[in-house]
Amino acid sequence: MYNFEFYNPTRILFGKGKVEGIDRLIPADAKVLITYGGGSVKKFGILDQVKTHLGNRKVVEFGGIEPNPHYETLMKAAEVVRNENIDFILAVGGGSVIDGTKFICLATYYKGDATDLLRRGFRPITADIVEKVVPFGAVLTLPATGSEMNTGAVISYDHGKFPVMSEMTYPKFSVLDPTYTFSLPKIQVANGIVDAFVHTVEQYTTFPVDARIQDRMAEGILQTLIEIGETSVNESDNYDVRANHMWSATMALNGLIAVGVPQDWATHMIGHELTALFGIDHGQTLAVIYPAVMDVCREQKKAKLLQYAERVWKIDSGSDNERIDLAIYKTRHFFESLGMKTRLSAYGVTADQLGAVVQALEKHGLTALSENQSITPEVSREILQRAL
Amino acid sequence: MYNFEFYNPTRILFGKGKVEGIDRLIPADAKVLITYGGGSVKKFGILDQVKTHLGNRKVVEFGGIEPNPHYETLMKAAEVVRNENIDFILAVGGGSVIDGTKFICLATYYKGDATDLLRRGFRPITADIVEKVVPFGAVLTLPATGSEMNTGAVISYDHGKFPVMSEMTYPKFSVLDPTYTFSLPKIQVANGIVDAFVHTVEQYTTFPVDARIQDRMAEGILQTLIEIGETSVNESDNYDVRANHMWSATMALNGLIAVGVPQDWATHMIGHELTALFGIDHGQTLAVIYPAVMDVCREQKKAKLLQYAERVWKIDSGSDNERIDLAIYKTRHFFESLGMKTRLSAYGVTADQLGAVVQALEKHGLTALSENQSITPEVSREILQRAL
Repeated sequence: MYNFEFYNPTRILFGKGKVEGIDRLIPADAKVLITYGGGSVKKFGILDQVKTHLGNRKVVEFGGIEPNPHYETLMKAAEVVRNENIDFILAVGGGSVIDGTKFICLATYYKGDATDLLRRGFRPITADIVEKVVPFGAVLTLPATGSEMNTGAVISYDHGKFPVMSEMTYPKFSVLDPTYTFSLPKIQVANGIVDAFVHTVEQYTTFPVDARIQDRMAEGILQTLIEIGETSVNESDNYDVRANHMWSATMALNGLIAVGVPQDWATHMIGHELTALFGIDHGQTLAVIYPAVMDVCREQKKAKLLQYAERVWKIDSGSDNERIDLAIYKTRHFFESLGMKTRLSAYGVTADQLGAVVQALEKHGLTALSENQSITPEVSREILQRAL
Repeated sequence: MYNFEFYNPTRILFGKGKVEGIDRLIPADAKVLITYGGGSVKKFGILDQVKTHLGNRKVVEFGGIEPNPHYETLMKAAEVVRNENIDFILAVGGGSVIDGTKFICLATYYKGDATDLLRRGFRPITADIVEKVVPFGAVLTLPATGSEMNTGAVISYDHGKFPVMSEMTYPKFSVLDPTYTFSLPKIQVANGIVDAFVHTVEQYTTFPVDARIQDRMAEGILQTLIEIGETSVNESDNYDVRANHMWSATMALNGLIAVGVPQDWATHMIGHELTALFGIDHGQTLAVIYPAVMDVCREQKKAKLLQYAERVWKIDSGSDNERIDLAIYKTRHFFESLGMKTRLSAYGVTADQLGAVVQALEKHGLTALSENQSITPEVSREILQRAL
């Protein structure tokens, strides 16, 4: 096991009706900005419920944070925070709204050009870079990204997607009420399951470092997602299934399965370029790319892929390659059982467009991906071809 | 899954050499009280390492916190904190030192009679009860109790053991360096494994509530402890094994496997009385009592015991009772493989002494134990008899 540091102070309020807790957790005299996305939280009454529990606090709203939240949109929100002297932000929505809100919290009082904050990669933003950060909490409506209990955000700017990390943007609290997912379209539920699944494998199918608890937690999340995935997509009001879906997605990326182990993230990096270039949903890109990553990187990942095959899929016979092939097949089949496509060609992407993806990776400096930096642009091209 | 609230802000510094981080995490101008136990941290040089990283801070020491820390000892330490104007306490030791330090933090500036703080059971102590709490961090030397990443303490007073819970006593940080366990006597290592194991089952072998992630995390901890237990006892300098042992023990009681599920704790409550009456080590009492609890409570726990048998012990044939019998046998055998005794009689306790244990439970109000309050004094007597 590698040495590690772990810290996660986000308070989780989980379950039906737990939104009432926001009244206790937001300062009574705070002026609150509610951030949200396309308006479904209005349509389905979630925003009204939230406002009820804000009582007499002054409330300002900022809607319209788009999927893959854009820098320009978020800077407009930061201006609102400054002009209205907002004390606390409450993000009501999915990963994009929460990611966007984290960036608003950092950018509002940043003294330089806020695009600086996009250029640090995975190096965290600390108090010496941004002195004053607006505190925020979240009410989650879409279980997928894990943003409700971590420090990360992905921000879109100039046709690229940029990670932004800061311990200062842990949500003070996140409300996880499974009933808030009942109104989601099936495609978003399926995307969310694939997102949580691939978050988990990015931290698991690498190489072994004898981190037994982390491995078993990862396997437990994967097994749970496999068990409940199809039902979660098809039974929109199945509380128990949605509760397990929601907690799985949070646990997949709150830092716990990451401690002391190598991490990959190649699938996400390649997927981000597909979203930026072709507008394919984030979850959809992952369902296409991850099986191809397993296939192409089967040698470097051999030990963990065999463990994945055995423990997650109960594959206990065949040669190593046969076991890995079957694990890839079963993974792909699982994604497809959720209604996801697992081929680039299904989204109309053709072989002659792959060069543009590789160029975008190069432009963004993503030329040595994966847990051992082995995925050069050449290997990325091979993965994309295998995903066609 | 039940509704839940989860919050755990303790920062974990895990791995060899991570003690260096205390310099960054303790305020530079803090006057520090180091609390410790019987002196092994002095003997094995851990205290010297700690002091090196405290730099020029003023340091006061308070040693002699005993196993099952006593109220009277801790009140003496609280007096030192007041008289010396201590800003920060650093607990260096195992669960008893950390538990004791939590109580010192709460008792120092409590305005009433500090024995009040012992009489709240599992009701947490909040800021309206104790206004000023001294902050503390921990350097763990004995992986067992989980106290390094939770809010709980167990304090001995007047021949009883009393739980004390407060969100205000989460350690600010805990250093978990597996090499600090290399000098432990075998019996303490074995006690620690049993303690972590039984912490896990207290939150797992109850009744199912469709909490899949929590179940699988619990099973992962149990499987890990079973895999590494004997080696951890026998190979004192096996870093990887001790690292897995250490992280298992922390994860077993940091609140994560407890969220949204019923909890038992009967084994602990009965065990506490055995420690108080006969001086049997905490871990030893658990190894004796838990198999008997499984046996006596097999009907109420049936579904989870069968799941435990199947997933943890891979028992996949036989009648329900045969499977449960085999799971009990294997659990007992595992404890014995660590060098633990699993019978009260092995500690010289005889049938005619069991009445005193039941009376002590009654005196402490522990007359409706277990996840469904089914363990009356009569049932406790049956468990004790089965454990003879």
